[in-house]
Amino acid sequence: MKIEELGEIGLIERIAKQFRVNKQIVTVGAGEDDCAVIDIEKAKEGYKYLVVTTDTLQESTHFPTGISPFQIGWSAVAVNLSDIAAMGAHPFAFTIAMGVPAQTETSFVDELVAGIEKCASAYNTAVVGGDIISSKELILTGTCFGFADNPVRRAGAKVGDLICMTGSLGNAALALRTIKGELKTKMPGSVEEVAKKTLFLPVPRINEGIIIANSGVVTSMIDISDGLALSLAEIAKSSNVGAEIYVDNVPVLSDEIRSEGSLDLSKLELRELAFYYGGDYELLFTINARALENEELMNRMKREVKMSIIGKVVPPEDGIYFKKGEEKEMMEMKGYQHF
Amino acid sequence: MKIEELGEIGLIERIAKQFRVNKQIVTVGAGEDDCAVIDIEKAKEGYKYLVVTTDTLQESTHFPTGISPFQIGWSAVAVNLSDIAAMGAHPFAFTIAMGVPAQTETSFVDELVAGIEKCASAYNTAVVGGDIISSKELILTGTCFGFADNPVRRAGAKVGDLICMTGSLGNAALALRTIKGELKTKMPGSVEEVAKKTLFLPVPRINEGIIIANSGVVTSMIDISDGLALSLAEIAKSSNVGAEIYVDNVPVLSDEIRSEGSLDLSKLELRELAFYYGGDYELLFTINARALENEELMNRMKREVKMSIIGKVVPPEDGIYFKKGEEKEMMEMKGYQHF
Repeated sequence: MKIEELGEIGLIERIAKQFRVNKQIVTVGAGEDDCAVIDIEKAKEGYKYLVVTTDTLQESTHFPTGISPFQIGWSAVAVNLSDIAAMGAHPFAFTIAMGVPAQTETSFVDELVAGIEKCASAYNTAVVGGDIISSKELILTGTCFGFADNPVRRAGAKVGDLICMTGSLGNAALALRTIKGELKTKMPGSVEEVAKKTLFLPVPRINEGIIIANSGVVTSMIDISDGLALSLAEIAKSSNVGAEIYVDNVPVLSDEIRSEGSLDLSKLELRELAFYYGGDYELLFTINARALENEELMNRMKREVKMSIIGKVVPPEDGIYFKKGEEKEMMEMKGYQHF
Repeated sequence: MKIEELGEIGLIERIAKQFRVNKQIVTVGAGEDDCAVIDIEKAKEGYKYLVVTTDTLQESTHFPTGISPFQIGWSAVAVNLSDIAAMGAHPFAFTIAMGVPAQTETSFVDELVAGIEKCASAYNTAVVGGDIISSKELILTGTCFGFADNPVRRAGAKVGDLICMTGSLGNAALALRTIKGELKTKMPGSVEEVAKKTLFLPVPRINEGIIIANSGVVTSMIDISDGLALSLAEIAKSSNVGAEIYVDNVPVLSDEIRSEGSLDLSKLELRELAFYYGGDYELLFTINARALENEELMNRMKREVKMSIIGKVVPPEDGIYFKKGEEKEMMEMKGYQHF
């Protein structure tokens, strides 16, 4: 059945009942009224700040070939949660505005909505409301709310701070380039599978963001949505600093993929994957260098947030560059840009 | 200059600086970081509930011929504020996700953004964040949140309650039908101008909603976005009641237009404008019939919210109908539906 046969009211009812909320806190949920209603004292659990972010995904720009409706729904939530993670905040609620072509099958919408609910509930986030209209192409705008006591800003990095990141980068780019047929050699099937999982089901680093925010040593943070280069540029601009990067310290591709052995990719190609492509949604952050003296903290950060130290903060006039031995190479500033 | 020449980062900077916020409360605003940050205690001013709504407008569906970019921006905020009004809540903050074709002139975006800021600030609402992507057609998703102590639900109307509305209906429909060339006779220029103002610059009934919510007699409320018939149907469904409507009590067209004298529209055509077209964004609500005994309150409601009593709540099995003398005519259930 097509959604146009179901009608708007039937469609909203069908979607809304898939979203489960705690009725003690969300007293009015999706599809029930003109607005969602949230008991703010119960919701905020003592936190001082409300944080809000909004992000749109659309078919022609954001959905790689082969992504499933479930994965599209998941991604629409995950990209918003990633911004919440980048503040070190606790996500709480989410609204989803959907533009869906009238010819879409209801089963497609069911799977899309299942992906939205699955990602939201995986991070204790309630889908509290939304909107659905008939559009030319699939377009999803999510808005996410969360709470924090000490939201971590992009501004705050100081000269001498250590530049750190969570996890590894490049899986999503590897998948994207494979799908687009841009790689010279074919990847082993197992590698392609792992890479595609990163691209199709991005993991917002919510827990990592909270641990980093609570570490007592973080000075700035951002998520890596459009490649490491652009995220470094944002931190540098907001904090008015430069960045010295030790490229060999940046984990490129996940352990699962690296354990497959040689991928027939040059060092330069690997660097491109990490620095100039997005989609991995790891966190980039800076910490006070004195943190190094606290071995227990450092070990905990390596264990709990898979932290790597990839560089150090330098004066703004130095710019952003790769350092290897005595050699300096200025970093190209490119990555995904909408305009 | 086209926005694609400006680039994403330049575009965001240009837009973000047009949004003014109270930095004591909104500590991080639009374009500044991964999320907006709001001091929740200061923002909520003692209110118990957070209310949230999201609504999308897109070129091919929602923008009548002749609407200006400023008016498009205004409308994107107004339709969301109307949902906040329908809960009787105080709006506080707004986020805007925009899909804009890359070939758009920057002056168009400037005017669009000016309309967003103008409408938001007119209702004490801070634009705290957003997103902008390149899309095939102009599409704007707003998300608005506010605060309330006693949010008014659609459910709550009881048999015997009076059915009321604010203001008048039909101006927006008159403009829309004129634009589409659907009317047999040409309207006087002054009428067309007033009607188009209603359609192009909708007024969210924020103050009216708050007064109604605080009246102590309201039992249910909704905004009239897609015509009176569908809003009555929503109240009836949510409250499990029927509705008896006195069609002559429904103010059709504003005083400004009615003072122009005869418009050569039949009674049936006028009724169509009010019941089966949207865009006026008045409020439909029910009040306890004992309110009639409180003359002071009734006078205040007529004066402050331009209230008309247009019917009464009846048992659900009676359905929704027009009553004139002893005659009953069941109301057709039609109005704007996306699917």
